Amino acid sequence: MSILIKNVLLDDQKTDILVEGNRIAKIAAGIETPSADCEVINAEGMAALPTFVNMHTHIPMTLFRGYGDDLPLQEWLNTKIWPNEKNLDEEIIYWGTKLGCLEMIKTGTTCFSDMYFFLPQEAKAVKDMGIRAVLGLTLFDGCNSDNLPNVKKELEQFEQTLALADDHVQFALSPHAPYTVSGASYQYIKAYAKERNLLMHTHVAETQGEVDNTLRDFGLTPVQHLHKWNALDERSTLAHCVYLTDDDIKILADTGATVTHNPNSNLKLGSGLNFRYPELVKAGVNVTLGTDGCSSSNNLDMREAVKMASFIQKGRTKEPTVMPTSESLAIATVNGAKVLGLNMGRVAEGCLADFVLVNLNTPAFTPNHNTLSNWIYAADSSVIDTLFCDGKILMRNHHVEGEEEIMAQAIKMAKKLIKV
Amino acid sequence: MSILIKNVLLDDQKTDILVEGNRIAKIAAGIETPSADCEVINAEGMAALPTFVNMHTHIPMTLFRGYGDDLPLQEWLNTKIWPNEKNLDEEIIYWGTKLGCLEMIKTGTTCFSDMYFFLPQEAKAVKDMGIRAVLGLTLFDGCNSDNLPNVKKELEQFEQTLALADDHVQFALSPHAPYTVSGASYQYIKAYAKERNLLMHTHVAETQGEVDNTLRDFGLTPVQHLHKWNALDERSTLAHCVYLTDDDIKILADTGATVTHNPNSNLKLGSGLNFRYPELVKAGVNVTLGTDGCSSSNNLDMREAVKMASFIQKGRTKEPTVMPTSESLAIATVNGAKVLGLNMGRVAEGCLADFVLVNLNTPAFTPNHNTLSNWIYAADSSVIDTLFCDGKILMRNHHVEGEEEIMAQAIKMAKKLIKV
Repeated sequence: MSILIKNVLLDDQKTDILVEGNRIAKIAAGIETPSADCEVINAEGMAALPTFVNMHTHIPMTLFRGYGDDLPLQEWLNTKIWPNEKNLDEEIIYWGTKLGCLEMIKTGTTCFSDMYFFLPQEAKAVKDMGIRAVLGLTLFDGCNSDNLPNVKKELEQFEQTLALADDHVQFALSPHAPYTVSGASYQYIKAYAKERNLLMHTHVAETQGEVDNTLRDFGLTPVQHLHKWNALDERSTLAHCVYLTDDDIKILADTGATVTHNPNSNLKLGSGLNFRYPELVKAGVNVTLGTDGCSSSNNLDMREAVKMASFIQKGRTKEPTVMPTSESLAIATVNGAKVLGLNMGRVAEGCLADFVLVNLNTPAFTPNHNTLSNWIYAADSSVIDTLFCDGKILMRNHHVEGEEEIMAQAIKMAKKLIKV
Repeated sequence: MSILIKNVLLDDQKTDILVEGNRIAKIAAGIETPSADCEVINAEGMAALPTFVNMHTHIPMTLFRGYGDDLPLQEWLNTKIWPNEKNLDEEIIYWGTKLGCLEMIKTGTTCFSDMYFFLPQEAKAVKDMGIRAVLGLTLFDGCNSDNLPNVKKELEQFEQTLALADDHVQFALSPHAPYTVSGASYQYIKAYAKERNLLMHTHVAETQGEVDNTLRDFGLTPVQHLHKWNALDERSTLAHCVYLTDDDIKILADTGATVTHNPNSNLKLGSGLNFRYPELVKAGVNVTLGTDGCSSSNNLDMREAVKMASFIQKGRTKEPTVMPTSESLAIATVNGAKVLGLNMGRVAEGCLADFVLVNLNTPAFTPNHNTLSNWIYAADSSVIDTLFCDGKILMRNHHVEGEEEIMAQAIKMAKKLIKV
């Protein structure tokens, strides 16, 4: 099975792209149709751009979108989120995940790194939607190492879930955060992950309060604390990292850990504007981008997150040259893909065929002095016409097959989930 | 001529809206078709929301979108913008303005307050597109009061332009900024504006450097300086105001001047994150919102600007309760409309019929716990189906009549404009 895309703009040059199986087989002008069953798409007036890798989500929480906005953090968690999360069940997770995947497809993302519960149902939904995910099992021990046996028991049961991994779905371990998981459990979880070559995905240094408390309780910053318990290496991804010291940044560089910036969440929840992008890049830390869950961001739109990340860095450093489009695209694509072990995030020969075709006959691309600038700084998801994932077309004319049913089911599930 | 919109969601209640002439005549459930020639729109699955008022633009600069991004400010102005602005002519202005109006319609804006040159051509384009604008004549004197006679001469000629005002287009005076216009000229311009009941629209306190220089040259902040020259009253709108002292805020409150926040521009150009929204609101200053020109923001999308403004305030104050959706909608709608003397920015009986119908069968509105939250925090322009301005439908199915020609002409004009 092959698909030939004719006359598409790529890196501001007109060319053809041949997709064979799940790969981009060839990029050149004037490629001839290789076989009679090859689908040919005339992409005149369109540009090809890589799809995004969203490195921090809680995907079923898409069902909480817009529920309890503009509230103080603890009030929001205590009165809106936690009481209702008790109602979660397999059906809610399945349709909540499908809704999140649908939104990602519509906004140009084909891969995400998640942290939640009910992983088998999440996995089924991701596979049914045809995109990619690394699904992390969320683990807590109340920051009390006496509860380590419970964590061990959960991980024993997790072996069954691991058997569900395939080309589209990997699994990971997600100890929640240094203020909810003890150092001993972090150490155990990380060793378990290492044995099975799983990623560890956790929340770190999200608020000043968290850092203050960790310093008070352990005499260490959250990053130092995790490092002490051997939880940091090149298979660790750390969401947020809003508050980092110079020493934290050195530890992250030395261990090869990846940082995931979530600008919209950090702003909306009032965590702060302190994400030290220039210092992280200078130190050689791999910086990636995420949206966080829809209950705190309030969407899964990575293009919006890229613009937000870039503009905030220019604003806080007062330097318009910080994070140019080449870098902001990288944090949203290849930097995440490489940690997940996927050859995607670029439209290049040999890469996985994960990309979008965007419509240039739109105000955001008029005039089109610079396609990448217009994509990141001017456009929105309305310009996305077609989306490829793993060589398959999941969206045409901005329409995903079955989207109406997904939205109808999600509305039902939100009613079942939210009671207070 | 009347239009009846049936079964539309308004403030989270299903209702009907009757538009007669250019006004919203009635809002109630079960309105019957008033006459045989009334168009009936079934808006089941759609919500009505007010259109935006963009209070700071340089609309023909839409043709510069994406040209020279991520550069230091002075290099960008000296090498990319100013040399090419010498090529401006009437045809470029007309099509550049039309392109900007098209983008505004597609993103839900029906009124803007502009600052540029060639106002008769801008006016013609705005009228042809069917939206509303206040077009400000940009004035400079090189910050040298010896050049005041030139300003006076320009204003004599401006009388002809003033005759072009109508229901859709008003005119204003736009002395550029305190670092390019002398106090004496500000005073003269403001007196001229006052006599003719015109708005004065200027740039103030955009960067720390500007404030430092004004303090050095005049011993006053930019706001104090303008106040000294009698340039501030309730018919003055001040774009940017990134750097304000407590005394500046008191002057703004006492004089009744309006402030226009341009979050995307202030970030992208590295001006800074210091906009003191809570203090301005507490002092009773009228805060409004703008995008600035596309060469520095890089679009005219007010919904994106609302989200940016709100998220930045939550982030910089570390208070998620700051600028809730009710307030952020106001700065983008009614707060601007009232300065411009327009009864718009609300979907309410008696108001001008300027509003959008957004499609709720979209991921951003699924589930729909809160329409306003989903509109501001989750959606993008792809959800806008229909746009009304002045009682007329300017967009249906997210398509504007003639949009293809506007984009084709704009591409030609951009080639004519940009030579270096």
